[in-house]
Amino acid sequence: MGRWEPNARGRLEQAALELYVERGFEQTTVAEIAERAGLTERTFFRHFADKREVLFAGAGALQELLTTAVVGAPDSVAPLEAVATALEAAGALLQERREYSRRRQAVINANPALQERELIKLAALASALADALRRRGVTDPAAGLTAEAGIAVFKIAFERWISGTGEADLPQLIRESLNELRAVTAGT
Amino acid sequence: MGRWEPNARGRLEQAALELYVERGFEQTTVAEIAERAGLTERTFFRHFADKREVLFAGAGALQELLTTAVVGAPDSVAPLEAVATALEAAGALLQERREYSRRRQAVINANPALQERELIKLAALASALADALRRRGVTDPAAGLTAEAGIAVFKIAFERWISGTGEADLPQLIRESLNELRAVTAGT
Repeated sequence: MGRWEPNARGRLEQAALELYVERGFEQTTVAEIAERAGLTERTFFRHFADKREVLFAGAGALQELLTTAVVGAPDSVAPLEAVATALEAAGALLQERREYSRRRQAVINANPALQERELIKLAALASALADALRRRGVTDPAAGLTAEAGIAVFKIAFERWISGTGEADLPQLIRESLNELRAVTAGT
Repeated sequence: MGRWEPNARGRLEQAALELYVERGFEQTTVAEIAERAGLTERTFFRHFADKREVLFAGAGALQELLTTAVVGAPDSVAPLEAVATALEAAGALLQERREYSRRRQAVINANPALQERELIKLAALASALADALRRRGVTDPAAGLTAEAGIAVFKIAFERWISGTGEADLPQLIRESLNELRAVTAGT
C-alpha cells in the first residue's frame, strides 16, 4: 500500500460506521475497520485515538465553528440570535451528512457508553458557547442560560431532523425550534 | 451491632461524602464508608448498589416529585410554569441540604466518571419531564423544548446556589433564572 491514501480519514469513518451498524460497536475491532477501508491499523491510529473517537471526531471542529461565529457576530446582534445564527451555519454543514448522522445516532443510541460520551460533548459545547458569549460582554446568568437554551434548541431540532421524513432541512428546524422556545417561554 | 440501625441510610451518605472529600472518591472503599458510619458493609449494600450510587440515590425521588407535580398541575397553568413550579418545590427540599449539596458537587466535579453519571441523570430527568408534559397534552416539539428549558433553568440556578454566598435560596434562584431565560429569549 502506498503512502498516498486519498481521503483516508473519510474512508475510515465510513468503514467504521458500516461495521458498527452491521455488527455492533462493541463487536468491531480497529483491525476490521482498517481492513474494510483498505488501509492499515497504523493509518487508523494516525487519524483517531480509538474506535470510539471515530464517532466524535467532528465535535472539535463543530465547537470551533460555533464559538468563532458567536464571538464574531456584530455587536448589534442579541446573544441568543448570535447563537442561533451560529447553529444554523453548523446545521447547513451537517445537512450534507444526513444519512451518516442518522446511522451514527442509531449506533450511539444502542450503546450507553457512547451516549455518555455524546452528553459530555454537548455539555462541553454549552460551556464553550457560554464562554464565547462572555467574550461578547454577556454577563452571567444570561451567558449560561443563553448557551443552554441554544443547546436545547439544537438538540430538539437535531432529533426532529434525524427522525423526520426529510422534508425540513436542519437549519430550518433549528429556526423553528428557536421560535418554539420563544413561544413556550413567552406563554404564562 | 443490633439490627435496629437508626437512620442508617443518612449516616452512610454522610460518611461516604466525608471520605470522598478527605481522600477522593476513587481511594475510598465501601468497607471504610461502613466503618465510618459505624455500620456493616452488608447494611451498606442493603441501601446502595455501590459507592457511586450513594451520590445519586436522590435522583429517583427527585424525578418522581417533579413528574408528579407537572402531571398534577391545574390545566390552566402553562407548560413552562408547571415545570418551574415543580422545580421550585424540589428546590425547597434541596435548600435544607445546601452544605451537603455543595460538598457533593465538589466530589463530582473532581471525577469525570461521576460527571458523566450526573449528565445522564439530568438527561433522564429532561426526558421524564417531557413525558409528563405530553401527559398534560403538550405536543412536540413544545414538550421537549419546555423540558430542556426547565433543566437549563435548574442547572444555572443550582450552580449559582452552590457557588453563592448563601443570600439567595434555591427556589428564589430558580424563579430568577426562569425570568432571565424569558428575557434572553424575548430579546431579538
